[in-house]
Amino acid sequence: MKPINVGLIGVGTVGSGTFAVLRRNQEEIARRAGRGIVIKIIADLEVDKARKIAGDDTLITADANDVVTHPDVSIVIELIGGLTTAKELILKAIENGKHVVTANKALLASHGTEIFAAAQRKGVMVAFEAAVAGGIPIIKALREGLTANRIEWVAGIINGTSNFILSEMRNKGLDFDTALKQAQKLGYAEVDPAFDIEGIDAAHKITIMAAIAFGIPMQLDKAYTEGITKLTREDIHYAGELGYRIKLLGITKRTSKGIELRVHPTLIPSRRLIANVEGVMNAIVVKGDAVGHTLYYGAGAGAEPTASSVIADLVDVTRMHTADPKHRVPHLAFQPDLLSNIPILPMEEVETSYYLRLRAMDKTGVLADITRILAELNISIGAMVQKEPNEGEDKVDIIMLTHLTVERNINYAITKIEKLPAVMGNVTRIRLEELNSNHPIKNN
Amino acid sequence: MKPINVGLIGVGTVGSGTFAVLRRNQEEIARRAGRGIVIKIIADLEVDKARKIAGDDTLITADANDVVTHPDVSIVIELIGGLTTAKELILKAIENGKHVVTANKALLASHGTEIFAAAQRKGVMVAFEAAVAGGIPIIKALREGLTANRIEWVAGIINGTSNFILSEMRNKGLDFDTALKQAQKLGYAEVDPAFDIEGIDAAHKITIMAAIAFGIPMQLDKAYTEGITKLTREDIHYAGELGYRIKLLGITKRTSKGIELRVHPTLIPSRRLIANVEGVMNAIVVKGDAVGHTLYYGAGAGAEPTASSVIADLVDVTRMHTADPKHRVPHLAFQPDLLSNIPILPMEEVETSYYLRLRAMDKTGVLADITRILAELNISIGAMVQKEPNEGEDKVDIIMLTHLTVERNINYAITKIEKLPAVMGNVTRIRLEELNSNHPIKNN
Repeated sequence: MKPINVGLIGVGTVGSGTFAVLRRNQEEIARRAGRGIVIKIIADLEVDKARKIAGDDTLITADANDVVTHPDVSIVIELIGGLTTAKELILKAIENGKHVVTANKALLASHGTEIFAAAQRKGVMVAFEAAVAGGIPIIKALREGLTANRIEWVAGIINGTSNFILSEMRNKGLDFDTALKQAQKLGYAEVDPAFDIEGIDAAHKITIMAAIAFGIPMQLDKAYTEGITKLTREDIHYAGELGYRIKLLGITKRTSKGIELRVHPTLIPSRRLIANVEGVMNAIVVKGDAVGHTLYYGAGAGAEPTASSVIADLVDVTRMHTADPKHRVPHLAFQPDLLSNIPILPMEEVETSYYLRLRAMDKTGVLADITRILAELNISIGAMVQKEPNEGEDKVDIIMLTHLTVERNINYAITKIEKLPAVMGNVTRIRLEELNSNHPIKNN
Repeated sequence: MKPINVGLIGVGTVGSGTFAVLRRNQEEIARRAGRGIVIKIIADLEVDKARKIAGDDTLITADANDVVTHPDVSIVIELIGGLTTAKELILKAIENGKHVVTANKALLASHGTEIFAAAQRKGVMVAFEAAVAGGIPIIKALREGLTANRIEWVAGIINGTSNFILSEMRNKGLDFDTALKQAQKLGYAEVDPAFDIEGIDAAHKITIMAAIAFGIPMQLDKAYTEGITKLTREDIHYAGELGYRIKLLGITKRTSKGIELRVHPTLIPSRRLIANVEGVMNAIVVKGDAVGHTLYYGAGAGAEPTASSVIADLVDVTRMHTADPKHRVPHLAFQPDLLSNIPILPMEEVETSYYLRLRAMDKTGVLADITRILAELNISIGAMVQKEPNEGEDKVDIIMLTHLTVERNINYAITKIEKLPAVMGNVTRIRLEELNSNHPIKNN
C-alpha cells in the first residue's frame, strides 16, 4: 500500500521528537500501521531549523496554510500550541478534509466542542492522545479500554513540574521557593512557571478527561483550579506523620448532584500506589464500576514520550481512515449526539475530607471552641494532633483531619475558627481524598 | 442503528459478570458503541443456571454449536476455557463469519497463530483483551497505545494468586505453605493451585504479550517457566534487607541475540512502583524506546474486571466491524504478513543479575573460595552479606548479589560452589532485575 502523507506544523520540542521517532522506527511503525507514514511537509517560522531537522526529501514552508491545504496531505499534526492561530489552522485543515492530530490541551479544553463538531460534519478524525499525560495512553484507555464501565472518578498527577517540586519538598525538606528554583535549573519549570504551578495545565487535562469519562462537553471555565504555591514544608511534614502525601491532583467525579471538576493539592494515603509517583512522572487512577481501580503511569512530558502519543494517533488514524465515520471511535468516547448534560458542580457543593492546620495559644478551652464550631456544622474529626510548643513558646500547631463534608461548610467553619481570639492568623486547609471508595477517612 | 447480536458460550464467573455488566451499563455502553449490544443466545451445559442469569428474552442452549452457527449472531464470546472444545468452537465461529471475543489465554498462547490466520482469511476479528491481566487494558496499550515505539521489554506481575501469596509471606512473615492455605481459604487459589503457583498461567500471558510487543508468533513452548513454590521466608527477608522485593514476574525482552521469554521469581528494587503492587492486583511495566517506562495497574482477575475487558472488546468489534479488514488493528499489533522471526533465546543464554544464598561453615577461606569461583567465570559481585551465626552454631548464611552474567555461567558457578566442602546443601538462586535500564545492579 502507498504511504500516507502527513503535514507537520511546528518543529519545537515535540515536533522534532515526532520527526526523529518516526524516522528511527519507520520500519516497525509501518509493520504496525500496514503502510508507511511519511512527513511530506513541515511548517515552521524557523525555516532553517526545520530544514536541518527534516533533511532534503521534505517540503519546508514558513506558512502553515501550505500544510493544511496541501493536496497530498491526509493528516495534519498541529504542534504550535496556543489558541487563536492553532484553532484557525485546525479548522482549516478539517475544512479541507484532513484528519488532525494535536497535542494542544489548552485549545481542546477551551474550544474542543466546536472543533469536534466541525470534524464530525466533515467526517474526519481529530486525535489528541498527546494532549493529556504525555506518553501515557490514557485517552485510549478511557475512550476504548474501559467502555464497559460507568466511570465513577478519575484522579491524576498530571503536571510533572508540580510533582517534581512536591517530591523535592518532601524528600529533601525544601521550601517551595527553593524547590521551584531547583526545578527551573533542571529545565522542569519555565521561567514563568505560573501555568504549571497554579494548576492551569492540570485543569486543561482534567477537563479533557472529564469529557471522555462522562460523555460531557469540554467545560474548562467551570473547573476549580488551585495550585501548589501556598504549600509549606510543615504541611508536607505533618501530612507525612499522619500517613499521607500531598500531591497536586486533577480530580473529576460523578456524584448524584453533578460532576466534580477540580485541581488542587490533595492529601492521599501514602500506601496508595499513586502516592509513590515521584519527580516529573505522571499517573492517573480511573475508577470504573466494573473494573475497579486501574492506574496508568509514565512520562507526562518530554520530546519523545509526547511524540510516542502523537505517532500512536497517526497510526490509529491511518488504520481507521478508510472506516465508515459512523463506526469510528467517537472523539469524546460517546457518540456526539448522545453527550450528557449533567452539570458541573460548583466547588462549594463538593464533598470531601480536609486537613486543617492552625496555630493557637496553648491554653485550655481552645480545642473545645474549635471542636464545638465543627460539631455545630456536623463536621466530624477523624484525627487530631496537637504539637507540643517549642521551648519558651506559648503557641501550638493543631492539625486535624475531618471526615467528609461539603466545601461550603468547611469554609464557614474556617471563618469562625479564625475569629477565635486564641487562634493566630489563617487556617490552612488542604483537601484529602482516600482514592479507594467514597468512605470517610479512617484514623491511621 | 440496530443493536448488534452477540452469542455467549459459558456463563461461569466471567460469563455471568459479562452479562451483568452489559445489562447494568447498557445505556452507557450503547452511547459509546453507537448502537446497542445484545446477548441473543447463551450456551452452557447448565441450562437452568443460564436461564436464571439471562431472563426470558435470551435464547438458551446446551449446545455451543447453536451459538457459533446462529444466523443473527455477529460476535461470539468464548468463555469456557480449555483447549480442544474451545478451539473447535472458535474456528467454527470464524468459519461462519462471526467475530470472536475470548479470554482464553491458554488457547491463544498455544494455538493463537493458527486461530489468527483463520480469522485473517475470513476477514473477521478475534479480540482477547480479557486474556491478559483481567481488567487492565494492556493489550490495547501494547497494540495501539505504544505503536510509535520499538518495545524493549515488558515485565509484569500477571498472576494475582502468586502475588497475594508473596505479599502475605512478606507482610506477615508467613512461610509459603501457610500463605498458600490462606489464599485457598480466601478463594484466591484453587484447590489444585499448580497452574498459578508454578507460573504456567503467567507463561501464557507473557507469551501473548511478547507476540504483540515484538511482532512474533505465539511460542508458549519456548517460555522458561519457574514458579514460587521454592521461595522461603528467609529469602524474602534477606531481599528486603538489601532493598529488594521478590515478585513473580513474566518478562520478555528484546536483545541482540534474540528474545527472552521467561517467568520466575525476581528481585526488584523496592522503590520501583511495581514492587509496591500488593495482594491479588496485577501490574505491567512496558519499556519503549520513545515513551520510556509506562506502567498499567489493576485487577487481574474476577468476574467484573474481566467482564470489563470482554465488553471493551465487544465495543471495539462493534465499532470496527464495518471497517475494511485491511485497515483494522492487526491481531498481533503487526500486520500478519510482516511478523518477525527473531528467535526466542534459550534460558541459559539469558543475561541477568542474581541473588545467591548459601549456608557455609563459619571458617576462614570459604568466602575466598566462593569469590574465586565467581571471578574465574567473570561474575562480579555487587553486594555481599554474611550473617553472624546464631549462638552455638558454626554455620553462616552468605547472601550475594551479582552483576549481569549469563545464566549458563551462574549455573556452572553454583555447581562448583556446591562442591566446596565448607558449603552445606544447595545454593539458592533468584534472578534480579533492576527494571530501569540494562545497567548492572548498584550497591544499596
